[in-house]
Amino acid sequence: MVTELDLAALHDSLTSPVSESMNFLNEIAHRFPDAVSLAAGRPFEGFFDLDDVPRYFDRYRRHLTERAGGDETGVRRILLQYGRTKGVIHELVAEHLRVDEGIIADPEALVVTVGCQEALYLTLRALRRDERDVLLAVAPSYVGVHGAAGLVDLPVLPVRETATGLDLDHLVAQARAARAAGRNPVACYVIPDFANPSGARLSLADRHRLLRIAAEEDFLLLEDNPYGLFGDPAGPPTLKALDADARVVYLGSFAKTGLPGARVGYALADQRVAGGHLADQLAKLKSMLTVNTSPVAQAVIGGKLLAHGCSLRAANARETRTYRANLDQVLTGLAARFGDVEGVRWNTPAGGFFLVLTLPFPAGDDLLELSAERHRVLWTPMHHFYADGQPRDTVRLSFSHLRPAEIETGLDRLADFVRDLTDRPDRPGN
Amino acid sequence: MVTELDLAALHDSLTSPVSESMNFLNEIAHRFPDAVSLAAGRPFEGFFDLDDVPRYFDRYRRHLTERAGGDETGVRRILLQYGRTKGVIHELVAEHLRVDEGIIADPEALVVTVGCQEALYLTLRALRRDERDVLLAVAPSYVGVHGAAGLVDLPVLPVRETATGLDLDHLVAQARAARAAGRNPVACYVIPDFANPSGARLSLADRHRLLRIAAEEDFLLLEDNPYGLFGDPAGPPTLKALDADARVVYLGSFAKTGLPGARVGYALADQRVAGGHLADQLAKLKSMLTVNTSPVAQAVIGGKLLAHGCSLRAANARETRTYRANLDQVLTGLAARFGDVEGVRWNTPAGGFFLVLTLPFPAGDDLLELSAERHRVLWTPMHHFYADGQPRDTVRLSFSHLRPAEIETGLDRLADFVRDLTDRPDRPGN
Repeated sequence: MVTELDLAALHDSLTSPVSESMNFLNEIAHRFPDAVSLAAGRPFEGFFDLDDVPRYFDRYRRHLTERAGGDETGVRRILLQYGRTKGVIHELVAEHLRVDEGIIADPEALVVTVGCQEALYLTLRALRRDERDVLLAVAPSYVGVHGAAGLVDLPVLPVRETATGLDLDHLVAQARAARAAGRNPVACYVIPDFANPSGARLSLADRHRLLRIAAEEDFLLLEDNPYGLFGDPAGPPTLKALDADARVVYLGSFAKTGLPGARVGYALADQRVAGGHLADQLAKLKSMLTVNTSPVAQAVIGGKLLAHGCSLRAANARETRTYRANLDQVLTGLAARFGDVEGVRWNTPAGGFFLVLTLPFPAGDDLLELSAERHRVLWTPMHHFYADGQPRDTVRLSFSHLRPAEIETGLDRLADFVRDLTDRPDRPGN
Repeated sequence: MVTELDLAALHDSLTSPVSESMNFLNEIAHRFPDAVSLAAGRPFEGFFDLDDVPRYFDRYRRHLTERAGGDETGVRRILLQYGRTKGVIHELVAEHLRVDEGIIADPEALVVTVGCQEALYLTLRALRRDERDVLLAVAPSYVGVHGAAGLVDLPVLPVRETATGLDLDHLVAQARAARAAGRNPVACYVIPDFANPSGARLSLADRHRLLRIAAEEDFLLLEDNPYGLFGDPAGPPTLKALDADARVVYLGSFAKTGLPGARVGYALADQRVAGGHLADQLAKLKSMLTVNTSPVAQAVIGGKLLAHGCSLRAANARETRTYRANLDQVLTGLAARFGDVEGVRWNTPAGGFFLVLTLPFPAGDDLLELSAERHRVLWTPMHHFYADGQPRDTVRLSFSHLRPAEIETGLDRLADFVRDLTDRPDRPGN
């Protein structure tokens, strides 16, 4: 008889709304392959070339061989054998941070991870000691932060969002209320540049104030920055670039700027712990989780960095133009289709992969299902970013992976869907 | 002022004996690079070729292209984009299990992971629900199982070891005592073939009895099998091959048989949960941990599988001969050097990467330090596999990554170390 396990007897994160979210969103995309997806936050595929993999691998291999004076024994050990837990491309990553972000990083304070998600997990695992600990995060927030927090049983305490990012007064109030209740706010998770899902960008003044608040209230800032590089270079610097006191753990991703298929990210964690860096503690955890990040995968990113003088901004000039043009097209397309529709409005991010559309009705998973089936267009119900299953009248639209014609089709279908819903007095969701 | 964190305020696993173990062992190897390491459990490097990476990548790429009728659009998506959480080489892995192990695996019950360590973590994370849960494992056990259990706050309940593996009566007694005390033994972790650290191999009768015990006492078996493939093909089948009831979660590694630098492993988890497989639940956790295993890294393993008709036994014929010869050389070398030394003895595993040497004195980290500094030879104190810091008179010897001349040098130095210690009446450890 096949062994059966009761889902309720397994870890809570498996039955959390987040877990259901990920499943439902994956599953619906799978079920309607011909739908235009205004839901997926993936980079545009047309930019990726299969020949890049061997080319970049070879570039990094030659770099190592030159450094070793032509002897490939050590190169073979670095690229093919079990390797350094903190990673092998740390010096190139530090140089990229200097060139592109003005961040001066000690390479020893870097841990190269299996995507940014592992960096986030490791940081939360290190910080979560007992049931008093909580994480502050803007609501709505990236699904993955709820997911990683769930894996370590760390509750997420919501901070109100404003049009320009975090409500900083509310952040202070939440941190103090938590402490007064005997809880310990260990950190605040934030995407300062073109947040997921809102697209909001924090002003320079708010960045400075956020750093002051974190110091005064004594918690860390976890800065996630997957989209900033595609923004205007004259925009405000990252929190980490402004961080003189190692208050910020910087979570880096190469999924959009490097290659998603490499699954390489990193944490810059230069806080002092036990005579070393927080990065050394993250590495101890990583040695029990994934041991080390595939050096083969790291080599692909290392080669891309080398090929562009460690500037991913330079490497992504074409990508930046495309994502910007897509955003403009969506904004123009929304105005053309919804400019005079009562109850429909949207924000206008200055960059990134996402914006938020407000509808005249609550749009939950049931309406997404209807939208997919009847109109062949997907979007993301906002409740997934609150991890609470409560339908709201806002949805996230994404556009990074689409061609211009697909964007037009998607918006047409979206308009049909909204018309369909608002024309029906007995509409679901009413 | 640089932010400082108190190590004691971070997660307990960072100050556990396991964590200190990993650190100490890495650090001492780093400090004495000219020492012969009878400590490292790595595969022999001479077998790995840098050209294998692009060659195997290309092999798998062509396989996908052929399958897609020549259209590379989908291939680009699979190899370069965000991908399937459960992995992309699952069908090849299932075929490998059929060919090499006689295991009939539903590819949908497989999750391809970032090395076997992530597979172990995901399984323990799923199974550990609350503080009543415990994991059964033979003592001594692989350091990584203590490490992964620590990440999810799952205590490890030791089961006595015999010369042929687990003491099955003690396993039953421990499981029942745990239940009587209100604890919930969720699983028993075991390496049936050439265990790490002992090298022991479970008999066929004990395998059958272990499966019966797991069913009767109602816990899962977590079968870890990194070394079995290098053993005699006429040896007993894996637990999973004998498992008619999906009682076993099989944890697979390609680090020794494929390429360590790919960091690819897998879990075969065909237990039924909520209308699907346990593998689907592991995938939900993985989507919050590492999102997916790099398809570039998977392609390298996929290519190697394709190049050898999915038989890693065939692909590793040379490796198998070498590891077997190394083991024989160590056994002969030990007899030559220690045959008449009182208090020194060792076991004689039938394969694998390790054996256990008993010394006439307790050998902890202090003596390893002395051995490294004075005799330039490294070995692993047994307490690291008990995760308790208590020095014992046994040490683990490994030999997989050494050339014959290095083995001789290493054993000479080890003999000098033992002589040095036993000749001194004031020896440390006395």
